[in-house]
Amino acid sequence: MQSQISIRTSGQGLYEFTGEAVEFVSESGVVEGLLTVFVRHTSCSLLVQENADPDVCRDLNEFFARIAPENMSWLRHTMEGPDDMPAHIKSALTQVSLSIPVANGRPLLGTWQGVYLFEHRRAPHQRKIVLHVSG
Amino acid sequence: MQSQISIRTSGQGLYEFTGEAVEFVSESGVVEGLLTVFVRHTSCSLLVQENADPDVCRDLNEFFARIAPENMSWLRHTMEGPDDMPAHIKSALTQVSLSIPVANGRPLLGTWQGVYLFEHRRAPHQRKIVLHVSG
Amino acid sequence: MQSQISIRTSGQGLYEFTGEAVEFVSESGVVEGLLTVFVRHTSCSLLVQENADPDVCRDLNEFFARIAPENMSWLRHTMEGPDDMPAHIKSALTQVSLSIPVANGRPLLGTWQGVYLFEHRRAPHQRKIVLHVSG
Repeated sequence: MQSQISIRTSGQGLYEFTGEAVEFVSESGVVEGLLTVFVRHTSCSLLVQENADPDVCRDLNEFFARIAPENMSWLRHTMEGPDDMPAHIKSALTQVSLSIPVANGRPLLGTWQGVYLFEHRRAPHQRKIVLHVSG
Repeated sequence: MQSQISIRTSGQGLYEFTGEAVEFVSESGVVEGLLTVFVRHTSCSLLVQENADPDVCRDLNEFFARIAPENMSWLRHTMEGPDDMPAHIKSALTQVSLSIPVANGRPLLGTWQGVYLFEHRRAPHQRKIVLHVSG
Repeated sequence: MQSQISIRTSGQGLYEFTGEAVEFVSESGVVEGLLTVFVRHTSCSLLVQENADPDVCRDLNEFFARIAPENMSWLRHTMEGPDDMPAHIKSALTQVSLSIPVANGRPLLGTWQGVYLFEHRRAPHQRKIVLHVSG
């Protein structure tokens, strides 16, 4: 079973959609199987991260802003704006797909694990994510 | 078929569990299919890496210690210890899930590929990993 | 269904094989399912990235050359050449496996998404990639 969800972003940072993923698996009726999450873009990405303290997400966003800053003078791909090539780099450093086993009709996430879209562009975007479950 | 294994860690570094993954696939009876490995934590992660020279694992651990050091003064999430937020960052830079095709009843790893848990915390931890195979 | 493809590389950089992946899924006859791509090496890796402007691939290669340069004096694993341990590091920072949902007999890639082998060694190599589709 497959479904596509859309997430509206408003700037760089992590956007949690654990609830949508859990609901999708529940509605699929799959009791034991595999959930796959795939993002259809190359300037945002996916992460499983801690959803307890919001400072974890802020620090992650800050780390990636520092490791791939906008002012790298050697960049060639600059025509889509100063935040575009750093966005591709941050995407390469994180995930485009996640695979999460399902048991008892739920993704087997750990206690503190949340599923996030990681937006790397400054401008608002509508991001498409494909959810797939097999069982 | 699913199974959960537990790995006891004693500090930062790579812990190989290729043997457990191969044995799980063998016992499942799946001849051709897909093995998925998922770690249920956000301060350790997964890697497929070379298992020939142990210096590869040491150098990998050292690289991540240098790219996400404990003394980053701008970090906000510090209440769980100086090694906790760097652990989340190292986890984001590596993998939470791995998908490995299975043929002839074995994961199709290359000659030098081993499957590792990458522990990012200093204190000993009991880490839970889910193995899932479909065929 | 599974297939193994081989890609001949001639130095560091990104080599697109989206066409081979699309063709594999088409020939499998799977209409809705999941494509998994797995690379059987630890000194090259996989990426889904933009395939519109070739400068994106060049900038990605340059970024990884800068984040894991060959002259890191603390490296221990140097016996396979100065580009080998940086190759393992770049591999750890990117992907060994990719999971892409399939619909209407095609991988659900976004408009600008291409599937790439990311070669991290300087010398020419023959790289083995496993394609797996279930439906």
